[in-house]
Amino acid sequence: MKREKGKVSEIKLAYIEGGSRGWAWGLMGDLAMEASMSGTIHLYDIDHEAAANNQKIGTKMFALPEAKGRWDLVSSPSLQEALNGADFVIISILPATYKEMQSDVHAPEQYGIYQAVGDTVGPGGVFRALRTIPIYQEIAANIKQLCPEAWVINYTNPMTVCTRTLYEAFPGIKAFGCCHEVFGTQVLLAEALKEMEGIEGIERHEIAVNVKGINHFTWLDQASYQGRDLLPLYREFIRRCGKDGYAERGREYAETSVFGTTNLVKFDLFERYGLIAAAGDRHLAEFCPGWYLKNPETVRRWGFHLTPVSFRESELVNRNQRAADMISGKEPVEIKPSGEEGVRQMKALLGLGDLTTNVNLPNMGQIPSLPFGAVVETNAVFAHNSIRPVAAGELPQEVNSLVCRHVVNQEQVVKGGFARDVSRVFNAFANDPLVALPLQDAKELFRTMYTNTKEYLGGYSNLPE
Amino acid sequence: MKREKGKVSEIKLAYIEGGSRGWAWGLMGDLAMEASMSGTIHLYDIDHEAAANNQKIGTKMFALPEAKGRWDLVSSPSLQEALNGADFVIISILPATYKEMQSDVHAPEQYGIYQAVGDTVGPGGVFRALRTIPIYQEIAANIKQLCPEAWVINYTNPMTVCTRTLYEAFPGIKAFGCCHEVFGTQVLLAEALKEMEGIEGIERHEIAVNVKGINHFTWLDQASYQGRDLLPLYREFIRRCGKDGYAERGREYAETSVFGTTNLVKFDLFERYGLIAAAGDRHLAEFCPGWYLKNPETVRRWGFHLTPVSFRESELVNRNQRAADMISGKEPVEIKPSGEEGVRQMKALLGLGDLTTNVNLPNMGQIPSLPFGAVVETNAVFAHNSIRPVAAGELPQEVNSLVCRHVVNQEQVVKGGFARDVSRVFNAFANDPLVALPLQDAKELFRTMYTNTKEYLGGYSNLPE
Amino acid sequence: MKREKGKVSEIKLAYIEGGSRGWAWGLMGDLAMEASMSGTIHLYDIDHEAAANNQKIGTKMFALPEAKGRWDLVSSPSLQEALNGADFVIISILPATYKEMQSDVHAPEQYGIYQAVGDTVGPGGVFRALRTIPIYQEIAANIKQLCPEAWVINYTNPMTVCTRTLYEAFPGIKAFGCCHEVFGTQVLLAEALKEMEGIEGIERHEIAVNVKGINHFTWLDQASYQGRDLLPLYREFIRRCGKDGYAERGREYAETSVFGTTNLVKFDLFERYGLIAAAGDRHLAEFCPGWYLKNPETVRRWGFHLTPVSFRESELVNRNQRAADMISGKEPVEIKPSGEEGVRQMKALLGLGDLTTNVNLPNMGQIPSLPFGAVVETNAVFAHNSIRPVAAGELPQEVNSLVCRHVVNQEQVVKGGFARDVSRVFNAFANDPLVALPLQDAKELFRTMYTNTKEYLGGYSNLPE
Amino acid sequence: MKREKGKVSEIKLAYIEGGSRGWAWGLMGDLAMEASMSGTIHLYDIDHEAAANNQKIGTKMFALPEAKGRWDLVSSPSLQEALNGADFVIISILPATYKEMQSDVHAPEQYGIYQAVGDTVGPGGVFRALRTIPIYQEIAANIKQLCPEAWVINYTNPMTVCTRTLYEAFPGIKAFGCCHEVFGTQVLLAEALKEMEGIEGIERHEIAVNVKGINHFTWLDQASYQGRDLLPLYREFIRRCGKDGYAERGREYAETSVFGTTNLVKFDLFERYGLIAAAGDRHLAEFCPGWYLKNPETVRRWGFHLTPVSFRESELVNRNQRAADMISGKEPVEIKPSGEEGVRQMKALLGLGDLTTNVNLPNMGQIPSLPFGAVVETNAVFAHNSIRPVAAGELPQEVNSLVCRHVVNQEQVVKGGFARDVSRVFNAFANDPLVALPLQDAKELFRTMYTNTKEYLGGYSNLPE
Repeated sequence: MKREKGKVSEIKLAYIEGGSRGWAWGLMGDLAMEASMSGTIHLYDIDHEAAANNQKIGTKMFALPEAKGRWDLVSSPSLQEALNGADFVIISILPATYKEMQSDVHAPEQYGIYQAVGDTVGPGGVFRALRTIPIYQEIAANIKQLCPEAWVINYTNPMTVCTRTLYEAFPGIKAFGCCHEVFGTQVLLAEALKEMEGIEGIERHEIAVNVKGINHFTWLDQASYQGRDLLPLYREFIRRCGKDGYAERGREYAETSVFGTTNLVKFDLFERYGLIAAAGDRHLAEFCPGWYLKNPETVRRWGFHLTPVSFRESELVNRNQRAADMISGKEPVEIKPSGEEGVRQMKALLGLGDLTTNVNLPNMGQIPSLPFGAVVETNAVFAHNSIRPVAAGELPQEVNSLVCRHVVNQEQVVKGGFARDVSRVFNAFANDPLVALPLQDAKELFRTMYTNTKEYLGGYSNLPE
Repeated sequence: MKREKGKVSEIKLAYIEGGSRGWAWGLMGDLAMEASMSGTIHLYDIDHEAAANNQKIGTKMFALPEAKGRWDLVSSPSLQEALNGADFVIISILPATYKEMQSDVHAPEQYGIYQAVGDTVGPGGVFRALRTIPIYQEIAANIKQLCPEAWVINYTNPMTVCTRTLYEAFPGIKAFGCCHEVFGTQVLLAEALKEMEGIEGIERHEIAVNVKGINHFTWLDQASYQGRDLLPLYREFIRRCGKDGYAERGREYAETSVFGTTNLVKFDLFERYGLIAAAGDRHLAEFCPGWYLKNPETVRRWGFHLTPVSFRESELVNRNQRAADMISGKEPVEIKPSGEEGVRQMKALLGLGDLTTNVNLPNMGQIPSLPFGAVVETNAVFAHNSIRPVAAGELPQEVNSLVCRHVVNQEQVVKGGFARDVSRVFNAFANDPLVALPLQDAKELFRTMYTNTKEYLGGYSNLPE
Repeated sequence: MKREKGKVSEIKLAYIEGGSRGWAWGLMGDLAMEASMSGTIHLYDIDHEAAANNQKIGTKMFALPEAKGRWDLVSSPSLQEALNGADFVIISILPATYKEMQSDVHAPEQYGIYQAVGDTVGPGGVFRALRTIPIYQEIAANIKQLCPEAWVINYTNPMTVCTRTLYEAFPGIKAFGCCHEVFGTQVLLAEALKEMEGIEGIERHEIAVNVKGINHFTWLDQASYQGRDLLPLYREFIRRCGKDGYAERGREYAETSVFGTTNLVKFDLFERYGLIAAAGDRHLAEFCPGWYLKNPETVRRWGFHLTPVSFRESELVNRNQRAADMISGKEPVEIKPSGEEGVRQMKALLGLGDLTTNVNLPNMGQIPSLPFGAVVETNAVFAHNSIRPVAAGELPQEVNSLVCRHVVNQEQVVKGGFARDVSRVFNAFANDPLVALPLQDAKELFRTMYTNTKEYLGGYSNLPE
Repeated sequence: MKREKGKVSEIKLAYIEGGSRGWAWGLMGDLAMEASMSGTIHLYDIDHEAAANNQKIGTKMFALPEAKGRWDLVSSPSLQEALNGADFVIISILPATYKEMQSDVHAPEQYGIYQAVGDTVGPGGVFRALRTIPIYQEIAANIKQLCPEAWVINYTNPMTVCTRTLYEAFPGIKAFGCCHEVFGTQVLLAEALKEMEGIEGIERHEIAVNVKGINHFTWLDQASYQGRDLLPLYREFIRRCGKDGYAERGREYAETSVFGTTNLVKFDLFERYGLIAAAGDRHLAEFCPGWYLKNPETVRRWGFHLTPVSFRESELVNRNQRAADMISGKEPVEIKPSGEEGVRQMKALLGLGDLTTNVNLPNMGQIPSLPFGAVVETNAVFAHNSIRPVAAGELPQEVNSLVCRHVVNQEQVVKGGFARDVSRVFNAFANDPLVALPLQDAKELFRTMYTNTKEYLGGYSNLPE
């Protein structure tokens, strides 16, 4: 890297993508909008063609006249080539394919288990975790050897397990996990301010929040706008919204889109616990499935949707078509902000301006009521070559109990996954509140999901009978 | 009290019974068999006639020629009279009547919730707790005033909540909770030794165990007979028993009695977690209901039974008849050992020989992985005017997580109960794994159970809508 | 307060000074240099004339043409008038007078106890703490009543005890303690960079540090400049400096000024513990007096000085003369930066730009190896109406032990001081490593110091005999 | 081993003695008085002649008509032969010789450091620890290989470090450390009862105590006789004793014997902290040397004595002479109780009767305010093949602080000793309150003591300059 007058050049960024495709476009767009950094992006994808396509799209993007950041693009032939000497590593993969995700999300439906997303906890989250662990073990081992000082940003789900695996495999790693769910809650609070007081144009980062919990089950015990406590306003807002909740993108979107939601889960958790749950309702519901996710009718009543994998598959077809069109020139390549914070974080880590934002990091006291060493989500201060979590404080005992159960399950999945210890993994699986099954059924489902996905699991024996 | 040559006389024992009746007979029997203690038993029951009957039965019992202990019996007109200056207080009540227990156990069945006992956790346990809290607050307040130095033995369920309430109401109280469930597991281990190695005649207290957990969800990580580790033998025993489990009182009893069990729940928990769960299967299943208690068919498969309240009611009719018969002389009054440890504990507390046994006490480090201050069950050393828990050690993380969830729920019930804070109580209710209901249903059930039992609850407002 | 376009006006700032005088000039200078805030400063001093003088000096200062901030000045007749409705409260007092400080610092010398400063720990620190406790109890009680939402900045020593007293007296207070000692260490690191690598002009806040410990006994386990780890450079710098240490203001100053130092204490602690001790040697030595402060000869060998109270008295005479001269016009009133962070912190709390800097706050997990609730020093993020500590992490066990001893002593002084419990206070006094006296001597010294200062102590009885 | 009707025979006991000689006689005497156990004692001593002599003396002892226990005696040619297949291992060694102890105790006197014993903490304790670590590492490694299931009783000082070393070297070891200091305090309480109330003939184990702390710095927060709280009586007793303290063996012994004491240190700690310090004053003083051990005059004032090593040397000459006389028949061999508990503990571990007594074990929660894993002293329940500490509870914060400092120092000595890391060891040495020396002096003393004893230290390099 070379540094001069508020700029850093000759950065090597390794982008590890595995089949998910779209994410790279957003990052490249953000980089193109930022003048202070330049260098080379090494794209690595197990599907080499996908990387090659993104290389072409990116090259077009950075050649646009409005592009301020200058980055060369390389399609890496190997993970090792991409990582070697990297300053930053970004990991955003789809563990295996949508075929396996089909098993994650839909196999449990045979047992009356409905998952809104299926990538975090629940049977889907556990098996997705089992597929990521061998991949992340390999990535971490290579980082240790080829770029131990690199900053590593994880975007893959299950966020907690992925980030935890990196640290378990290489304790000296400088990794953190990023997720935009909290941002959505900041936006919601900004909208509440608009609805209740007519204040327009508030940007999400003007809503200051204290973040504590784990990814997708994160809580805010403080939220303020210009120093003003927003919790009373949020309470009033919920009351005014009433039984229909709040549909930030309009009723039609809420009713028809698979991502549509009316925030009723979030509102209920606030009314019962006094803290703002800071993730989308689809995610939150998976942590408390008895209440919100018992069956499709309950889901309807709470105003959100299950996301079928077929939807994701058709989206992928679209994305592939768009890639082809952008390469052929049929669709113009454009620079658009992604809404993610990766580029701002990179800037801060390069010493180009401090930043406080929420990330996933091993617990060293930032939430003293959760197990130390487990990965938790709080704010952190990003500065030159440094990230340090903010002391978020304990969670109230009853919320802590809801969260801690999942922390322990995920810890057990990681430990069981490293040891390929099927009984430890199965106990975590069976203890997930989404898997409220008689044991025989739980074992049967586990075996089915194992069989469906076993080529990606790294080898377990003695499945539960 | 008067002490001479290994004997203590002039002991005042207050026996607080509320409608449950039979327990007093066992205690009086044990006292009658023990020569080293004598004094007066003050029987207090909200049903004065029940106390008067027991006074008559007890008087007959201590007059038997084979009675070694000499105790006078008084039927106390008031709680205050019974407690005033007492050296020991024994509390064994039925909170409210079987009509309320009918609601505890059977109202949830309308929602597909099955409880094997319904007096510890689950919807029944929570409402039973809510009924005991006002009663125990009153008892503790009177003990503080009338006999602050007395040793207080609790036999009432929910054990954890009752004992915790005593300490919350009077932190200086010298109280502990006793339960015989662990004894049953010691007996089972003795039987395993007989089955596997032909060793006959082992008494339960020859099976040394390290006890850790909470009442009815207690675990053993060490068990030995004459210094020999029994865990490998138990593992082998389980394997030999196979799918039919083990029926200590014979197959017919196991199949037909409401108390019958084949230990399959206990065996499964051992195979999956490596620790011996040390309570009856009916209790254990209520802490992990998804696995073992989903519906009547699951219950059958695991080889235990649900206990209908009608059964308890008919038992009560029998007991009342027996009381009448004993008073009239139709049935002879007999001295029989109860199998409980209360009298041995009293002896130890009077300095007549040390004793190590399992009891329920506030956590001061005996299980450092559970919240301090919460009531937990471990061994404790009983000595003259002293009880001190044995350091049982941490529970393994995955078992700790199973247990801790219930610890927190019960803590919240106690705190919510003291504050008459319905939302805190409801959150604990809704978070019980037995109440895996969509929230609207959970609220409806809560309101129903509230309405069914409200005259005993001490007054809450703003029920969840 | 009124807010418009990046400015806040109509701020009420209460400045509570007690005899120390000079500090207010620095703050007023900083405020005068800052255009974004304006309002009224209410000066309160138990010596009303001192407040009146500062009111005159301040009025002149803010009338200077170069003054950007506009503040009116009021000399408050009472503490209550100053605090009523305040937005900020700054407390910088001399507890009692230099006569009492004479006792703090010099009475122990009769027993062979030498203190370099005498205001933090040691016999002087304990008695100074005892004098501040009643004053701070009164201030906190008034804040609770008159301006409970105000931000309260403490500059008084003993910093830890003063801040802790505010929270003990009013748990909802929004208070923090500020000290510039860590800044000095940042300057030292900047000088090391200059010395070792010829990099000129580094400002202290460009040296990023992770701060952990307690006031005046603070440690850095990370220090970096532009993302580069400074610990290896610091190690090399220490080696190069050798036995003479490093005199940032030159050898003559180091040898002749009472504040002169050669950093040998700081260097030794680094060599032995691997962490940078981040306070001046005069302060550090008082926490490890056996090693560095045994007697005047040891002090000389380690290259620092004892600060006699006579020096402070003559400084006060100078300051009083300067005040008179500034009022009379003999000396011009000037605007100079103080080097403190108070004004930057106020700006951040008003939402005029975030800031991360080190402050003293109750421990909520920022240093999980020290007692929760005790006041510790770490970095914290200042934002609009919010301060949140950064998770600094545990101290290494051996350093933690050095620090924790003082944490416990100071906790005991606060608890003993609130209860006016002389034996608790005496135990802390006698356990201070500076008081390594046979008990009879310790008691005698305690009584002497008590007698010397008793009119300010709030009344204890039963002194140790 | 063979077990029949309340007896165990064919026990193999390895007795590892290293030059200390006398201890074996006491043990053999206790074994001879106990009919329920028999077997073979393998005596191993690095001084083979000493072992051979004890073999002869023991053989005579067990041949006495009054001997109830039957034990054969073997003088082992090697540590390995002694340990191979042992059921019990007893370790009681003198690390090195009195020449090295001369350095431990008297070298520091050149620096004004006085030690009453010099074998636990302080400069003597640290160097003695450094000498035991290599020896105990070797013993533990051999136990792991040759008798991993043996119960290992340590009598060597420094007790904490020796026991901790066994666990650090072989975490699965079944070891505990025994010390009679608490017994002495029980005797003192019995005498207080006699003095104050005329109750005669109380045996020490009738005084029930709750023990918490570390070896030689142990505290009692509960003490009772027949259920009666003894703390008020102890307070009254201290008052009555006044300035002269209490001399249990008479004034002359107190004044002239090196072991003489008047309990004034113990009394002062009680008056100041409210807990009974439960070790002899000579030991207690070494943990709080500023107060009680500043110089010989302070020692005199507190009524105890320093124990010169010359006294121990002359005692050894006497013991050697007695050994020769017993072998030659000049002095008769006698069976006398030792006052130790080893034989009672062995009985309990063999299942011949439970026992609760105080021992040193790794902290697993028995004292939750001290670091887990460190060796602490509390009561423990001894049963068949099992020892489990009693939950003693937290120490009050101010006492905990006194104790914890030494816990951390001893932990650092062990860790530094295992790593042969001289700087870690030196930091612990310099931080011992007995070493309140300017650093240059501390380093000089360290080097001197190192040089004096280096052949036993296992090899360190880079001594502090």
